[in-house]
Amino acid sequence: MRQSQLFTNTVKELPKDETSYNAQALIRAGFVDKVAAGVYSYLPLGKRVLDKICNIIREEINNIGGQEILMTALVPKENWQTSGRWDNFDVLFRLSGSDQKEYALGATHEEVVAPLVQKFIFSYKDLPFSVYQIQTKFRNEKRAKAGLLRGREFLMKDLYSFHTDQADLDNYYEKVIVAYQRIYQRLGLGKFTYLTYASGGSFSRYSHEFQTVAAAGEDLIYVCDKCQVAINKEIIIEQNVCPLCNNPDLTEKKAIEVGNIFKLGTKFTEPFGVKYKNSAGASEPAVMGCFGIGPSRILGTLVEINHDNQGIIWPESVAPFKVHLLSLNEPEAADKIYKELVEKGIEVLYDDRELMAGEKFANADLIGCPYRVLVSRKTLASNSAEVKKRTEDSSELVLLSKLANKLI
Amino acid sequence: MRQSQLFTNTVKELPKDETSYNAQALIRAGFVDKVAAGVYSYLPLGKRVLDKICNIIREEINNIGGQEILMTALVPKENWQTSGRWDNFDVLFRLSGSDQKEYALGATHEEVVAPLVQKFIFSYKDLPFSVYQIQTKFRNEKRAKAGLLRGREFLMKDLYSFHTDQADLDNYYEKVIVAYQRIYQRLGLGKFTYLTYASGGSFSRYSHEFQTVAAAGEDLIYVCDKCQVAINKEIIIEQNVCPLCNNPDLTEKKAIEVGNIFKLGTKFTEPFGVKYKNSAGASEPAVMGCFGIGPSRILGTLVEINHDNQGIIWPESVAPFKVHLLSLNEPEAADKIYKELVEKGIEVLYDDRELMAGEKFANADLIGCPYRVLVSRKTLASNSAEVKKRTEDSSELVLLSKLANKLI
Repeated sequence: MRQSQLFTNTVKELPKDETSYNAQALIRAGFVDKVAAGVYSYLPLGKRVLDKICNIIREEINNIGGQEILMTALVPKENWQTSGRWDNFDVLFRLSGSDQKEYALGATHEEVVAPLVQKFIFSYKDLPFSVYQIQTKFRNEKRAKAGLLRGREFLMKDLYSFHTDQADLDNYYEKVIVAYQRIYQRLGLGKFTYLTYASGGSFSRYSHEFQTVAAAGEDLIYVCDKCQVAINKEIIIEQNVCPLCNNPDLTEKKAIEVGNIFKLGTKFTEPFGVKYKNSAGASEPAVMGCFGIGPSRILGTLVEINHDNQGIIWPESVAPFKVHLLSLNEPEAADKIYKELVEKGIEVLYDDRELMAGEKFANADLIGCPYRVLVSRKTLASNSAEVKKRTEDSSELVLLSKLANKLI
Repeated sequence: MRQSQLFTNTVKELPKDETSYNAQALIRAGFVDKVAAGVYSYLPLGKRVLDKICNIIREEINNIGGQEILMTALVPKENWQTSGRWDNFDVLFRLSGSDQKEYALGATHEEVVAPLVQKFIFSYKDLPFSVYQIQTKFRNEKRAKAGLLRGREFLMKDLYSFHTDQADLDNYYEKVIVAYQRIYQRLGLGKFTYLTYASGGSFSRYSHEFQTVAAAGEDLIYVCDKCQVAINKEIIIEQNVCPLCNNPDLTEKKAIEVGNIFKLGTKFTEPFGVKYKNSAGASEPAVMGCFGIGPSRILGTLVEINHDNQGIIWPESVAPFKVHLLSLNEPEAADKIYKELVEKGIEVLYDDRELMAGEKFANADLIGCPYRVLVSRKTLASNSAEVKKRTEDSSELVLLSKLANKLI
């Protein structure tokens, strides 16, 4: 894309109430716009990153059999009453319609998915299956000061699975753990992200979260370096050793919760009557799991852990563009290079604007594409362009004839 | 996809309050689920169709330079007060947050996009540009009885354009008309859809809607067969001739509004201070256009105009799957055919369930994929499969060796 056509630009004046690094950097670089505390619009660069995050999640969830659906944000009061959460779920945004019907905006979707699947489950032969959506959630948070890490309106991938029994859920739960680990790996979060043991509720000794170590994290975790797992604060109070190897030497770290998996058992299938006939013909409630990852929180997390004083450093898998091509008063040569790279299928943001070199460099570092390619009188003198990785200080001259192959 | 794994199935009992044909058919065939009046979830088959509709719209809007963004559903009260719509826009769902902050859910997004672009427009050199989103809208409709044609929660593609002057907007407006006509053509709605002249407001003599002729339509239009355009009811009262050829011989038809384009002028750019410096250095408000198409309404419209007594008839461009493969007790041969077609890149819904032939035929007609491919002992006796188009009564035997090429 030609940057002269991109409607966004560097934002110099940040909203006064914006104190989080991730939101400040994303606003400054033109990825998001703040509409209210915890409420952000995604601009063209931000939308591209968000789409790539969502597609990685989608591919891995499809691989473990998830069927994609799209549920509603308006969730009738009756549904929340059936589960018993209307009166005590304190982050619900409540509202009423012109027909006096009351709703809460979906903060999570057990209350929609359970009555939905109830219509399609009859026999044990209909199980197991899992459905998911990537959809906007609303939570009336008291505090929304962490930028994209804790929004009042945010994007969530929520997967719900349905099984005949606990053993089958346990088996699927392990598959989801592996899928999540692949997702974090592909998002460039793998080495910072720990499977973290949390309190289990009534269905299992532990539940699990995925936590990414980051200075901006709101949670504390306790990492076992031997097993590469962690326990959360609740668990450290109950036991002060690694749940796998009993190692007492755990390191406290700040972390961001980037995923959340639960064995719900029959907590929602009982009240919503999600029952099936077992092989003996008897009616039993289905056993349910739920599994969340927030793509917009992932976006914020990536910025928190991948940046320097100049700006954002995107992993290649989710960068808005792979290449940021800067022309210093060489429009003809740069146009030609731009066309060639795009024809080869490389994603290029092309800074074709009439700006000073320093401003272009600063903007490229702020936006943070993995490769910066500079075309100037000096580089063209040797039929070359200067290629610099965002993660490295040094650059190299690459012959124009070899540029596309270098960047593919 | 193997139908044995699809979690949905034919729904025999429809919601009692569902009176619209489009929603009845889509619920029965497992494309959508009704959560409340005018509030529907999209199930795997429905999500696939919706995604295809959105992608056609996205491609055509990208082609006229639209930059995709994603704005918020929570829109602060102050924004609606700035435009003067907080008190008199009767379909707003209003709600308050825990910090006493008031919002309305986005029913349209002029109040979000205008303050957003205000931050990026300084000079006439920053204009023109256009931004769009495909996003969930909320309207507190008094009546929501038309299924997906008029929802309380629905999907909308809304495009907003910004210009230095009226002439530039007029020019872009004509480009959008052409893009919209291409969209309807690709969606299979071309021959039923008319550019329809409506009242113009203060900026031009006419505004325009796109109306698709359908018995279920809530609007009345008056078609000029010579010019292939229409006028709406407001205009027929003012004048009773075709606006292009003055033909008085217009035919009244019921129609569904499937698109809506407006020259907003400075109605929103003035109150939100969206100003630019012209070439003489003077400050002027930008001139704005807005252009909507509702993908979920399109979904309902397609069902209204493409069906028979047996069920839905999808145009190939948006069908959930191109081919519905039915195996009648021939799992081995059918598995092989399924794999081959999928490897060739053909989208196949494979009915591998143990059901009676009649039930499979009825289900295939209800779901409405363009091609039904039957594999039975009888067809295999001649090394063939029976291929039937959903739009035709007759079928033909096609040699298995030629099947994939026939269906590509």
